[in-house]
Amino acid sequence: MPLGEFQLIDRFFRACGADRDDVRLGVGDDGALLRTPPGDDLVAVSDTLVEGVHFPQGSDPRSIGHRSLAVNLSDIAAMGGVPRWALLSLTLPSVDPAWLSAFASGFGDLAIEHGVALVGGDTTRGPLTLGVQVLGSVAAGKGLRRSGARPGDALFVSGRPGEAAAGLASLMARGLADLPAAERRVLEARFLYPQPRVALGQALLPLASACIDISDGLVGDLAKLAAASGCAALLEVDALPRLSALDAVASRPYALHGGDDYELLFTVPQARAAAVMALPDVTRIGEMRAGSGVTLLEGGRTSAAAHAGFDHFAG
Amino acid sequence: MPLGEFQLIDRFFRACGADRDDVRLGVGDDGALLRTPPGDDLVAVSDTLVEGVHFPQGSDPRSIGHRSLAVNLSDIAAMGGVPRWALLSLTLPSVDPAWLSAFASGFGDLAIEHGVALVGGDTTRGPLTLGVQVLGSVAAGKGLRRSGARPGDALFVSGRPGEAAAGLASLMARGLADLPAAERRVLEARFLYPQPRVALGQALLPLASACIDISDGLVGDLAKLAAASGCAALLEVDALPRLSALDAVASRPYALHGGDDYELLFTVPQARAAAVMALPDVTRIGEMRAGSGVTLLEGGRTSAAAHAGFDHFAG
Repeated sequence: MPLGEFQLIDRFFRACGADRDDVRLGVGDDGALLRTPPGDDLVAVSDTLVEGVHFPQGSDPRSIGHRSLAVNLSDIAAMGGVPRWALLSLTLPSVDPAWLSAFASGFGDLAIEHGVALVGGDTTRGPLTLGVQVLGSVAAGKGLRRSGARPGDALFVSGRPGEAAAGLASLMARGLADLPAAERRVLEARFLYPQPRVALGQALLPLASACIDISDGLVGDLAKLAAASGCAALLEVDALPRLSALDAVASRPYALHGGDDYELLFTVPQARAAAVMALPDVTRIGEMRAGSGVTLLEGGRTSAAAHAGFDHFAG
Repeated sequence: MPLGEFQLIDRFFRACGADRDDVRLGVGDDGALLRTPPGDDLVAVSDTLVEGVHFPQGSDPRSIGHRSLAVNLSDIAAMGGVPRWALLSLTLPSVDPAWLSAFASGFGDLAIEHGVALVGGDTTRGPLTLGVQVLGSVAAGKGLRRSGARPGDALFVSGRPGEAAAGLASLMARGLADLPAAERRVLEARFLYPQPRVALGQALLPLASACIDISDGLVGDLAKLAAASGCAALLEVDALPRLSALDAVASRPYALHGGDDYELLFTVPQARAAAVMALPDVTRIGEMRAGSGVTLLEGGRTSAAAHAGFDHFAG
């Protein structure tokens, strides 16, 4: 007898993620009942991964489980929030206990690492699609936004944007075949197991003027931050962190336009830039200007950035 | 030039649903920032609709928009919650402005009716899938659950369960061809535009001992309520509301096993049953007993209910 939907939910997801005292009622009813921290704002984010769009067909289910939560934790990080609870809408073509077990452990291990309880969701039959929502909290009125950058603010990025895209290219055998296998594995892990910058986001609350996570490429997401803030951005390409194992020429397209990094891109008033420089794993990569659009500064020359970021529906 | 993802979100969803003062930051950033009512519990629900599974291919997009929100509002209703905010994860095979406009109006009109603001979500390319989450509130510790029924409690249902399934059969030309067209349209509207019982759920907060919404069929959802409560249920089939335009014989399978009703099924201690009888559009259909499982009482005879409810993955 095939394993039924309800048994399936019980078996893999009833005890997935962290235990939290603020969960009054979790998985298994029509909804979850949660105690919110008094006075804080609620932060609510939602991101969906579709097989063949956000990850290659046949990907390791452990990675899919990790990434489906990580991309949402990254959105929480970009607001400076503390993640608390997750909901998971799992659409599956069929029931494969081994697949589900690996998926749940990828999801659950990352949830435990960030203190997140899985409190609800649903399971349906259909093309493989993972819809995840994360709910968290932030001090009232203090949540980071894309829209707060001002001309003169310094521009920073965390980590080494582009490594995830280089890792995906390696996984798909679309380049980088010359790299030693060990170095390819490092890049591939950046795609398969991105580490959301939740602690950094919280550290930026008193420092940053604007913040966005890089999911669709550095230049594209910078253009969104600049537009939301009514500013221009100057991006110093030579200041970008070098990708592990790649030289500057090979790094450039991945660093500027690669997606899936889930690093934070943020702006800081000059008076607070020194405090940000003291944080680990952040690099100053430019500044905000009056005007609009993204300008690249490279080898002493400037050029307008043309690429508008990854768009699922662009022709 | 095709309409891009970001413009698409702006055009159809930036001003969808109700305006609410408690939305500090809505659609357009990495997440939403929301002010929760102090002291209340947060109610979080999530339900996904997949084309060809939850609605026929080629369904009216206005109905899809309505239903994708309605099924979630029904979950909020089953907890006795006040809906406040919604997130929408829209996976689309392609961009069709006419489709999106009709979808957004079906979603938005129901959202406005229930005072719900659309505050976030995402849009991706893939097989047509609608993932919706609704967040609401309920007095701390008072949210309705499936698990509170006790032997002796009276069993009630709202509306006329089975009409949505009869309407779907008519839409799919799988029966009911003998009915007059006007009566078929009434049944079809029950499937296409279910009305979630949000006000009833709130009215039940001081009255009901347990509550569930009927999405997978009356008998199956009653079995879940009984199991969660550690009770048996006696369902008086002859007491079930007659389906509009159908006689008792034709009604029976739809009423017992049809899904998609989004009516509330709830139990009430006998001392409060009279207060429930005074509510509009509710019918007493049985009672809870010691033991387990669902027993049907029909024409003076009892039988064990075999059907375990709709299961996407049952063989």
